[in-house]
Amino acid sequence: MVVKSQIKFIKNLQQKKYRTQNKLFVVEGIKTVKELLESTLKVHKIYVTDSTVLGLNNDFVELISEGDLRKMSGLSTPNKVLGVFHFPVPRQIDFSDWVIALDDVRDPGNMGTIIRLCDWFGITNLICSPNTVDCYNPKVLQATMGSISRVNIVYGDLQQVLGEIDIPVYGAFMDGTVVYTEQFPKKGVLVMGNEANGVSEAIENLVCKKISIPQFGAKTAESLNVATATAILLNEIRRG
Amino acid sequence: MVVKSQIKFIKNLQQKKYRTQNKLFVVEGIKTVKELLESTLKVHKIYVTDSTVLGLNNDFVELISEGDLRKMSGLSTPNKVLGVFHFPVPRQIDFSDWVIALDDVRDPGNMGTIIRLCDWFGITNLICSPNTVDCYNPKVLQATMGSISRVNIVYGDLQQVLGEIDIPVYGAFMDGTVVYTEQFPKKGVLVMGNEANGVSEAIENLVCKKISIPQFGAKTAESLNVATATAILLNEIRRG
Repeated sequence: MVVKSQIKFIKNLQQKKYRTQNKLFVVEGIKTVKELLESTLKVHKIYVTDSTVLGLNNDFVELISEGDLRKMSGLSTPNKVLGVFHFPVPRQIDFSDWVIALDDVRDPGNMGTIIRLCDWFGITNLICSPNTVDCYNPKVLQATMGSISRVNIVYGDLQQVLGEIDIPVYGAFMDGTVVYTEQFPKKGVLVMGNEANGVSEAIENLVCKKISIPQFGAKTAESLNVATATAILLNEIRRG
Repeated sequence: MVVKSQIKFIKNLQQKKYRTQNKLFVVEGIKTVKELLESTLKVHKIYVTDSTVLGLNNDFVELISEGDLRKMSGLSTPNKVLGVFHFPVPRQIDFSDWVIALDDVRDPGNMGTIIRLCDWFGITNLICSPNTVDCYNPKVLQATMGSISRVNIVYGDLQQVLGEIDIPVYGAFMDGTVVYTEQFPKKGVLVMGNEANGVSEAIENLVCKKISIPQFGAKTAESLNVATATAILLNEIRRG
């Protein structure tokens, strides 16, 4: 049986404050939990409402009632399995390949999609400004699928990091050079800005090359979403 | 004052059944409502809680209380303006340029992002299978921004439509030809499939060229999200 304090503890992990304090995060759903169990992430606890789903032969798997799962879940319709995992220890950013830098990306869906894109395009390092949405936010995790375990995500002072490196810093801007004419080097940083305001002025000053995705047809659209722009730019960098 | 029956009528438009029956849809938020007012769409009614937002010099603008807006809104925090617009009359699909076909895309966020991408890349025609999510679903509209007024969206029998045309039909598949080597013609159809199952077998039989976005690095990611894949493929078609 799960005690009340345990339910409260898990429920609290829906909030960034408690996640950061405990260095633990929650994922829900059979598929993602199974994928993370097979990853390098360290598991803290798994709760299941159906013993046939995962097997109970592990110390960290506990059978609970559907009522208790509902109480600890962040979903309106909980999905049989809830996993609690330890934060991975962030590694030092490796600048020997392309790195993505996020300057205050706030939408969890965008963040999740970008992490999944990094995984697809073999980008293993993602730097995020402190105001970028928390990568362990449940809505981020829902959009990343298992990719969260394969991308090294580091939060830090972008201005300091970008100021210290000696590889080219590219940035996505509405008024940059058309990306199709660009010959990308083997390594670099690509900065993607905030949904409403784009790249901040402080970071813009550190960008050595502004790039842009051209608009076609009647040119009536106002902008591209930051996640779809990242998809297109990563594809441009990798296609060569 | 808004009468109860009116509130109920607007609230019901959150459901596809009532939207289809009345050929009316709801958008919320100042920015999108203003954009749609300037488009070719025909307005039915606008409700505002603040008379300074839009001006009240039009017959279709009505000042209401915040309580009434809360009752008719689909948002947890309603945003001063709610607009009701008539469905545009779908035009016949124009196959003289590229057309996107959606084979049971179900997620409203994906659908909204794809409509916005069409607008960006100058794709003015979108055909959707009957089981594709309704483009007037509030969550779709939230992701499309004003693009909904600039893309001709037609729901119909994909098998019949694709069977009758004489331009090349491309489809996004996991095991297709690498898209980078493809020389795209001036016109064609690009089929994007369902989030979980991809393109259906019946439609696959009508695809003359399967294309794929290659994966890079450790190749650990399971798939790309359908909206980001559409972004990359539209960019490939348009970049030439």
